[in-house]
Amino acid sequence: MMLSKNEIKYIQSLCHKKHRQAEGLFIAEGPKVVTELLKSDYKVRDVYAVKEWISANPGVQAKEISPEILEKISALQAPNQVLAVAEQRVHADEPVPETGIILALDGIRDPGNMGTIIRIADWFGISQIVADEDTVELYNPKVIQATMGSFMRVKLWYKPLASFLSDSKLPVYGALLNGTAIHEQAPLANGILVIGNESKGIREDVLPLVQHALTIPRIGGAESLNAAVATGILLSHLTRR
Amino acid sequence: MMLSKNEIKYIQSLCHKKHRQAEGLFIAEGPKVVTELLKSDYKVRDVYAVKEWISANPGVQAKEISPEILEKISALQAPNQVLAVAEQRVHADEPVPETGIILALDGIRDPGNMGTIIRIADWFGISQIVADEDTVELYNPKVIQATMGSFMRVKLWYKPLASFLSDSKLPVYGALLNGTAIHEQAPLANGILVIGNESKGIREDVLPLVQHALTIPRIGGAESLNAAVATGILLSHLTRR
Repeated sequence: MMLSKNEIKYIQSLCHKKHRQAEGLFIAEGPKVVTELLKSDYKVRDVYAVKEWISANPGVQAKEISPEILEKISALQAPNQVLAVAEQRVHADEPVPETGIILALDGIRDPGNMGTIIRIADWFGISQIVADEDTVELYNPKVIQATMGSFMRVKLWYKPLASFLSDSKLPVYGALLNGTAIHEQAPLANGILVIGNESKGIREDVLPLVQHALTIPRIGGAESLNAAVATGILLSHLTRR
Repeated sequence: MMLSKNEIKYIQSLCHKKHRQAEGLFIAEGPKVVTELLKSDYKVRDVYAVKEWISANPGVQAKEISPEILEKISALQAPNQVLAVAEQRVHADEPVPETGIILALDGIRDPGNMGTIIRIADWFGISQIVADEDTVELYNPKVIQATMGSFMRVKLWYKPLASFLSDSKLPVYGALLNGTAIHEQAPLANGILVIGNESKGIREDVLPLVQHALTIPRIGGAESLNAAVATGILLSHLTRR
């Protein structure tokens, strides 16, 4: 099957946040993620795939495209057999449940970091993430890719972080330089963990709302840890049983 | 000052491993890394910088170039004021000291992961890394960039991992799926920690040499953790005091 120029342009336009939001759609790519997406409660609008994938997935209604067309509509550096267009899930009006651990992201900017953080949250069984509005968008193709499918198992709310934290009754923890060593912190049943921006850390109006500072003790010379790595280390300690 | 076409080509050629290794040189970029490099025991051959950086660093002998030329010679997506060409440090003939924790990388392929792992090692005071020969090269510009300067504080040996591990007298630990939960593992004074490849894990001929399997308990749905994140979590537990 051939895709029309307009259809190609339409899919390409979903690489841009403005168009994604106007349409309420996003793209997900690669056999692993698309197969999982088709089994999830996401509504998949269209699947575009090369012959090879279609033969291996006879039950799926997909439009066959050439590798050249996949290259054109893909947001990846190395397009991988199949691309799906699906409907975004929005739960902005749902309240954030105040149980378990909630991850609060204070302006994570790098899509790779963002996706990796979502994957980490999913590994540690955390399905509630609140992100300040200047955090990179969940449905950015690079974020979706880096989550390795974990975006389907977490809920993400975009909210001004300072007001979310001051309204919440949960204790607020944050990754900071001069806090309690993470090894000395008891596991956390219910609470919010704030992760700061990659270069600026936790912002000024959020800082006073952090009640418990947690620190990953430094032994060597590096100035800082990557935000996703720090999230992984903190959660591995806070979720231990 | 103008750079000759040949000089531009020469610097650009250092983006390729073959040329880097033939010349024994590498490039490092950005004010933070270059400033640190100039203070380190690395031998810096040349510094190319825009006017702004040169005015701010009057003590450094640098060749002034335009932002356009910097764009041409830079390996970064967002070139940042200054680029240095320096001599690689080789210590292939030095034996790996058998004390403390040694990180062993079994074929890490992604430059971003590799740089992040070096930064993590440096944070936790680990300065000895042994990498199998198919691990991405230390002096790859993307690796250097991702280390955020930590490459200056670690020593990295490229060796066939299986023979290094069988020759070593240190206990060998590895990140695996069905091992001791990391929370139950005592801190490690001396030992080797093996980190597997991003998608394939620890390879078959290395696996039997891992004496102690360590696991990061999974609570949620993600299939795996990023290799750098797993390294950070394991080291945060193994180095606790």
